[in-house]
Amino acid sequence: MSHPEIEKWGVAEVSLTAPNITDIPDRWSEDLLHLVFTHRHRSVRVAGFHDGEDIFRARFMPDAEGEWTWRSESRVSALDGRSGTFRVLAPSPANHGPVGVHLPYGLVYADGTPFSNIGTTAYAWIHQEDTLVAETLRTLRDAPFNKMRMLVFPKHYRYNENEPPLYPFRLLHAGESKWGGSHKGESPRGWEFDWATPNPAFFQRLDRAVAALCELGIEADLILFHPYDRWGFRKLPAEVEDRYLRYVAARLAAYRNVWWSFANEWDLLTHRSIHDWERYARIIQESDPSGHLRSIHNWRSNYDHRRTWVTHVSYQGHPSAVADLRREFTKPVVVDECRYEGDIAEGWGNITAPEIVDRFWTAVRLGGFCGHSETYYNDQEVLWWGKGGSLRGESSPRLAFLRRFIEAHGGGVYEPLSHGWSKRGQNDAEFLFYPEQGRPREARFQFPDGKRYGIEIFDAWNMTLETSAETVEGDAVILLPARPYVGIRALRLHQ
Amino acid sequence: MSHPEIEKWGVAEVSLTAPNITDIPDRWSEDLLHLVFTHRHRSVRVAGFHDGEDIFRARFMPDAEGEWTWRSESRVSALDGRSGTFRVLAPSPANHGPVGVHLPYGLVYADGTPFSNIGTTAYAWIHQEDTLVAETLRTLRDAPFNKMRMLVFPKHYRYNENEPPLYPFRLLHAGESKWGGSHKGESPRGWEFDWATPNPAFFQRLDRAVAALCELGIEADLILFHPYDRWGFRKLPAEVEDRYLRYVAARLAAYRNVWWSFANEWDLLTHRSIHDWERYARIIQESDPSGHLRSIHNWRSNYDHRRTWVTHVSYQGHPSAVADLRREFTKPVVVDECRYEGDIAEGWGNITAPEIVDRFWTAVRLGGFCGHSETYYNDQEVLWWGKGGSLRGESSPRLAFLRRFIEAHGGGVYEPLSHGWSKRGQNDAEFLFYPEQGRPREARFQFPDGKRYGIEIFDAWNMTLETSAETVEGDAVILLPARPYVGIRALRLHQ
Repeated sequence: MSHPEIEKWGVAEVSLTAPNITDIPDRWSEDLLHLVFTHRHRSVRVAGFHDGEDIFRARFMPDAEGEWTWRSESRVSALDGRSGTFRVLAPSPANHGPVGVHLPYGLVYADGTPFSNIGTTAYAWIHQEDTLVAETLRTLRDAPFNKMRMLVFPKHYRYNENEPPLYPFRLLHAGESKWGGSHKGESPRGWEFDWATPNPAFFQRLDRAVAALCELGIEADLILFHPYDRWGFRKLPAEVEDRYLRYVAARLAAYRNVWWSFANEWDLLTHRSIHDWERYARIIQESDPSGHLRSIHNWRSNYDHRRTWVTHVSYQGHPSAVADLRREFTKPVVVDECRYEGDIAEGWGNITAPEIVDRFWTAVRLGGFCGHSETYYNDQEVLWWGKGGSLRGESSPRLAFLRRFIEAHGGGVYEPLSHGWSKRGQNDAEFLFYPEQGRPREARFQFPDGKRYGIEIFDAWNMTLETSAETVEGDAVILLPARPYVGIRALRLHQ
Repeated sequence: MSHPEIEKWGVAEVSLTAPNITDIPDRWSEDLLHLVFTHRHRSVRVAGFHDGEDIFRARFMPDAEGEWTWRSESRVSALDGRSGTFRVLAPSPANHGPVGVHLPYGLVYADGTPFSNIGTTAYAWIHQEDTLVAETLRTLRDAPFNKMRMLVFPKHYRYNENEPPLYPFRLLHAGESKWGGSHKGESPRGWEFDWATPNPAFFQRLDRAVAALCELGIEADLILFHPYDRWGFRKLPAEVEDRYLRYVAARLAAYRNVWWSFANEWDLLTHRSIHDWERYARIIQESDPSGHLRSIHNWRSNYDHRRTWVTHVSYQGHPSAVADLRREFTKPVVVDECRYEGDIAEGWGNITAPEIVDRFWTAVRLGGFCGHSETYYNDQEVLWWGKGGSLRGESSPRLAFLRRFIEAHGGGVYEPLSHGWSKRGQNDAEFLFYPEQGRPREARFQFPDGKRYGIEIFDAWNMTLETSAETVEGDAVILLPARPYVGIRALRLHQ
C-alpha cells in the first residue's frame, strides 16, 4: 500500500513485485492477480494489472471512511497471500466523489452535490509532447470546464498528423504517417504491434493525465474506441479488445473522475455489430467495481440509449434536440458535440463564440448539458480540439459565467416548460427564461399562485446579471432589452 | 365578357344578370350556373358564382392563345344559353403564368421560368382598413417578396384584436372581441352568421387583393382554414365548409397567382379528422380547373405530404430540416415559418435579421425555399406579420440580394451535396457553398474532372459579391475571410 492513509474516493493502490517475471507467460492477463478489499462486512474483489518490469498493482476507490484491509490472490506465489491495512479519511473539500445519475435527468457527485456538465474536448491531448501536455493542464486550471472528452487511442485526422510519443501496445514496426483525408479512418499502412503486450509507459502516462484532471476537478470522459486511426487500433481482434478493456478498467476505474465513453461516433465504426458494443459494456461493468458513468456517442444515428448499461445520452447535434432526447430515453442528456467555436473548413468546427454560447444555454434551458471545443486554425496545427494547448476563443469566459449561474441556488438540472421557460428546485424555487436565438422585448409567465419572485435579468454574452427592483407574482410581463442572449432568472422570495 | 381581349393566363370573366333574383332560393349554390369555355377541340366547364344583387359571374384562366368561345348552362332561364367569344393574346412580359411543380424539387412558372420562392407573411392584411391595405401594397411594390401567405378568414390572436371591415358570411349578430390569450382559438362568443349566405362585398375585397398581388408579381398563398378565431370560422358544419371551398374556388381559381394552402397549422385544428382534410382537397381539385399548387402547413406534426394532392411541402421549423424533408416526401420544400424577424415575446417572432437571413440561405443551400415575416412590436400593434403596413427590419434588403442571386444563371433549385456544398444547372454549371451558422477560413471541394470554374465570394449580410481573380479546378481549397454569412459561388468557365 503506497499510502497508509487516503481520503474517501481517493485511489488505494497496492504494488507487489514478482521477481521472476519472465517465468509468467500470461503476466498481462487480468486473471493473474486479484485483491480483495474489505471494510466491515463488505469485500470487493478487484483485478490487478502488470505495470511493466517486475511490478504488479491493484487499485481501488474506497467509498467509506474507516479501516480497510486488503489481501491478494494469485497463482504466482510471490503475488499470493499478501495483505495489509489502510485507513480512509474524510474527503478533502474539493473531493465530491464520482459523478452518477440523479434520475431521471440529473448528474450528481457521490456526496450529493449536483454536477453541472460544462465539458470541453481535446481528443488527443495526452498524445502530445510533455510541454504541450503541461500547457493544456495550465489552460484547464484557469478554464471553466469540469469535464474533458479524450481518447485513449491516438487520433489520425486532419490537423492530427504527428506521431504520439507512446503507443498503447508494444511497437514492432512503424509505418507511414501521412493523412489521407478520409473521415472514416485509414487502414493501417505498415504499422505492426504486439497486440498481446500493452505498453506500460503509455498507460502510466494515461494514469497521470487522468490524475492531473482529477486534481483540477475535471471529469475524464475516456473514449475507448474511435474511428480516426492509421495504426490499426480502430478494430482489433475480439480477444485483444476484451483484454484492452479489462486492462484499462483495472488501471483506471479507481480514479473517481473517470467516465467510460464507449465510442466517439459509434456509427462510423462500421466493422462492429451491436453485439460487440454490448459485449464491451458487459466487460466494463464487470471490471469496474465503482460503476462509473457509461455512454456511447453518435455521429448521425443514436445508439439505443434505452439499454440499461447506458447511464446517460451522449449526443452529437443541435441542443434543440435535448427535449426530445429526454422524452425518448428518460436519462440525462449531454450534447457533447454541438459544433465547435472556430474557423476551420469543416462545418463541425467553425461556429462563432456567440453561437456556441447560445447552444450551451439552449441545452441547459431544455434540461440537458453541453460540451465545448475550439477549432481555430494555426500554422502549428495545435487546435485545442485535437491537441490541447491554449484557448484563444471568446466562449470560455461566457461558459464560466454559465457555470456559476447553474451552480448557484443549489444547482441541478432544469426542467423545461413551454415558451422558453424552465424550472428548478423544490417548491417552485427558481424559474429560468432563455429565448434560444431570440431577443424578445418582453417575456410573459404565469407564476404559481401565492408565490412572489425576485427577477434577475442576465446577459449570457456580456456576462451581466442585474437584479430588478420589482418583484412579480401571478400572470407577469417582464420587460427585456430585445437583445440576443438576454434571459431571466426568477427566484422565489420568502416573505 | 368584360374584355374581348385578354392575355394568356389572365382572368376571363363573364358577368350575367338574373333580374328576378329573389325567385332563386339556391342562388349561392355552385350548381346554378356553369360556363363552358372552348378553344379548338378542348372545352372546360367551370362553375359560376353569385356575386350579390342580380349579378352572376364565371371566371376562367385560359392557357392557350387564340379564339375562345363560351356558353352558359343554367336551370335559371336568364342565365342559360348565353354565349360569346373572346381572343387570348400573348402574355405581357411580366406574366409568366401560374406556378407549378418541376419534379422533384423545383417550382416553375407555366412559361418555364423557375420560381424562386422568397415568401413573406401578413396573415390578416386584407382584414384591415383601406389605408392600411394600400400601405401594405406600396410596401410590397418595393420589397423582394414573390409570395404572400394570407388568410381568407380574419385572425383572432394577440396583436390582432381589431374587427375586420367585412365578414365572409352575412352577419346576424356581433359578439365580444376581447382576445383571450389562448393560442388555440376561442369558442365564438355571441357572434351569429347566416352560414348559407356568403358576403359578396367581402369576397370582392379578397378578389381585389389577389388581383393587386398579381399585378405586383406576387403569388397569393391563400390559407383556407386556420385556428385563430373568435367568430366561429374555425370549424363550420361540413356542408358550409364544402360550399365555402367551392365558392372560393369559383371566384379565385382563375387568378394565375393563387396557391391553395389548406391550413395554417393543421395539427392545431383538432376538431378535424384526416377525412375532412382529404375531402377539402378533393373539392378544391374538382373546383379548380387550373390545378393551382396545394399544400398544408404544420404546427408540430407534418401532414402526410406523400398524398398525391399535396404538390409541395409547406413546413414550419428550422430550415436544417429541408434535406430530410426532401428525402421523406420527394417534393419541393418551402419552409414557410422559420421564426420571424422581430422582438415580441413569442419565440416564433423574435429572431434577429442576420438569423433569418442565415435561415433563408440554409433553406436554399439545402435545396428548398424559405419564408419571411416581421414581428416588431409597436404601440399601434400593426405588425407586418398580422396586419401588413410597413417593413422596418433589416432582412428584406438581404432577401432581395438572395433573390437576385438565386434568379441569376438560369435560376432553379439547388441540389445539396455534402459539407456545405450544393449544385445547380446542366453539366455541373454552378456550385454553391454556404456554411450555415459557420464561418470557415477556407472551403474545400473536389470539382468535376476537366472542368474549370470562376469563383465568386459573396457576403449574404453585407450584400457583396466579389469575383476572384483566380480560377479553380480539381481538388481546390478556396480561402475565405472566416466571417459568418460568407459563401462561394463557382461558375463553370467555357474555355
